[in-house]
Amino acid sequence: MTDPRYTSTVAALPSTVPFVGPETQERTSGQIFRARLGANENGFGPSPAAIEAFRNAAGDIWKYGDPENHDLRHALADFHQVKPENIVVGEGIDGLLGYLSRMLIAPGDRVVTSLGAYPTFNYHVAGFGGVIETIPYLNDHEDLPTLIAKAKEVDAKLIYFANPDNPMGSWHAGSTITALLDDIPDGCLLILDEAYVDLAPNGTEAEYSVEHPKVIRMRTFSKGYGLAGARVGYAMGARALVKNFDKIRNHFGMNRASQAAALAALQDQDWLLQTRSRVHDAREYINEIAITHAMTTIPSATNFVAIDTGRDGDFAKSVLEALAIESVFIRMPFISPQNRCIRVSCGPREELDIFADTFAKVLKTLQ
Amino acid sequence: MTDPRYTSTVAALPSTVPFVGPETQERTSGQIFRARLGANENGFGPSPAAIEAFRNAAGDIWKYGDPENHDLRHALADFHQVKPENIVVGEGIDGLLGYLSRMLIAPGDRVVTSLGAYPTFNYHVAGFGGVIETIPYLNDHEDLPTLIAKAKEVDAKLIYFANPDNPMGSWHAGSTITALLDDIPDGCLLILDEAYVDLAPNGTEAEYSVEHPKVIRMRTFSKGYGLAGARVGYAMGARALVKNFDKIRNHFGMNRASQAAALAALQDQDWLLQTRSRVHDAREYINEIAITHAMTTIPSATNFVAIDTGRDGDFAKSVLEALAIESVFIRMPFISPQNRCIRVSCGPREELDIFADTFAKVLKTLQ
Repeated sequence: MTDPRYTSTVAALPSTVPFVGPETQERTSGQIFRARLGANENGFGPSPAAIEAFRNAAGDIWKYGDPENHDLRHALADFHQVKPENIVVGEGIDGLLGYLSRMLIAPGDRVVTSLGAYPTFNYHVAGFGGVIETIPYLNDHEDLPTLIAKAKEVDAKLIYFANPDNPMGSWHAGSTITALLDDIPDGCLLILDEAYVDLAPNGTEAEYSVEHPKVIRMRTFSKGYGLAGARVGYAMGARALVKNFDKIRNHFGMNRASQAAALAALQDQDWLLQTRSRVHDAREYINEIAITHAMTTIPSATNFVAIDTGRDGDFAKSVLEALAIESVFIRMPFISPQNRCIRVSCGPREELDIFADTFAKVLKTLQ
Repeated sequence: MTDPRYTSTVAALPSTVPFVGPETQERTSGQIFRARLGANENGFGPSPAAIEAFRNAAGDIWKYGDPENHDLRHALADFHQVKPENIVVGEGIDGLLGYLSRMLIAPGDRVVTSLGAYPTFNYHVAGFGGVIETIPYLNDHEDLPTLIAKAKEVDAKLIYFANPDNPMGSWHAGSTITALLDDIPDGCLLILDEAYVDLAPNGTEAEYSVEHPKVIRMRTFSKGYGLAGARVGYAMGARALVKNFDKIRNHFGMNRASQAAALAALQDQDWLLQTRSRVHDAREYINEIAITHAMTTIPSATNFVAIDTGRDGDFAKSVLEALAIESVFIRMPFISPQNRCIRVSCGPREELDIFADTFAKVLKTLQ
């Protein structure tokens, strides 16, 4: 009996996963993390109104969610002053990146991204047989002009660019991005991943017409809004582009309670403001912790801070591993020279205190 | 400026959706359905323990769900007496059908299914450029021997077969299916969609080794367990096959609270037994309603009943539309001769009473 006949693309894929989850580490070690500061989750939590909406939806969870995500999509359209037809809601930005890759990438097609940027995007592109071309960071910033130049050179169908960036937390002014949009070559689409923009300084959002045919903007309720476990992301783009998602997406894929929670979170902008303030304070505190150890941080527009250990990737990795043994969960960039840093998510003071104490302890044994 | 360059497969797809949701109909009519009996949701609801688990998880919804679905997968493995490596959890059976289609179907590949069976499966196959070959129902039952014969004839990579069936509710004994498994041609995989098997008579589950290389079995928490809005399905198959899902699935796609709710639902088998009893009574009641109007029903092993109007598809459609105007939501098969029927989901007595009264009213005006 022969096995199922996989497509040549899928047969050639490695059995890798983009990220190992903290729960996997906890099961391996047999210990629960005392500080969960590795996945850029928002430990300050979502708006109480969002939690309440989620809970209230539990009694109706026997019903499928609205496949059109009507109420959320219309509220988002009002919020962003675009049309509902410019918005597609999906199972997190991860889900939307998968759909978009499927829409555009056939085996051999080229895609440009920064070296060491989002592994899940790379995972989806590779999953459809795409070929990834990378551009190094420039002074710990993603380098959009060079990404665009590379896209021209290799005739790329997609550019992935996150602003603010993950894993470094660095950012560009929105106006800088806007000025570059006309340089994107014909037949190429820029994915502007703004997962962290809700936490960035005013002026970080690029301004352009949502009908611009060369940009799609991704947003999420996982970061600023604190609803990572609810899996709600959305993309904004030209109607013609957004319509194509409806050809392939899992129409009944959205959780009913998550739709309600995201809507309530959006409607509580005061909470987002408070979160921005808490994240700001946490960034400052992480910076202070770094200074204590004669280290620096990369200025951050996100809910995490990259601490520059001043050493190499091996050292940063040893810090990460030593912290994990002490039940403190953080992550780090994958690629040199950014992997000289460790990446610490913003969280409540108690968790950052645990990180501070454990970091000090660990550094003593490693130095 | 040119548009993004879609793959030829996606460019050729129509902008259709597999199903219009009841919320869309409600928005169009401006009226909320008084009886929601069209989507085979389970109006008896999930186990109270599942609702409680879902609510309790709300406070932790700022955390991503475990990408390995470890606890749920291991509990399912114990329950089905297979290994965790035989199980993949996904965003409903719909999500898993999408992944499986992606794994196997390249443009031009053949797939065999019953004429008028699950549109969402067809949607996913077409979405990857697959070519669908259909076999008519035989006496309102899916016809597995002929599906297999067709698969041999057209060298199909996939056969889709639901037991119990949707939209007719008919079923085959598990032993009948088991006896046919060796006839599946080499290089062909049978999708055994058992979404409704939790509500079927004992003996409906086919028995075979989970490592059988030619079958993948799909299950869901949406029907018997009453958690449609939570989006939790799973597939069971050979380890080698299941491992391939990890190459392409949205690893962080599962809702954290849904994982917890599904686990609690699985652990409350008493509730499932009660649900089976309620569904049984509802099926009987729907049959009585049909008899009142000198109609018959198709014997059902599911939480819905197909009422044979004794007329044609146009008549059944007029009944459906008249009921919708009266704010009663049901559905019907798409294809002749099954479309002589209307399909009514089992639900609480009050909703079925509303259906009964409105059905009687509507039939008077139509006859």
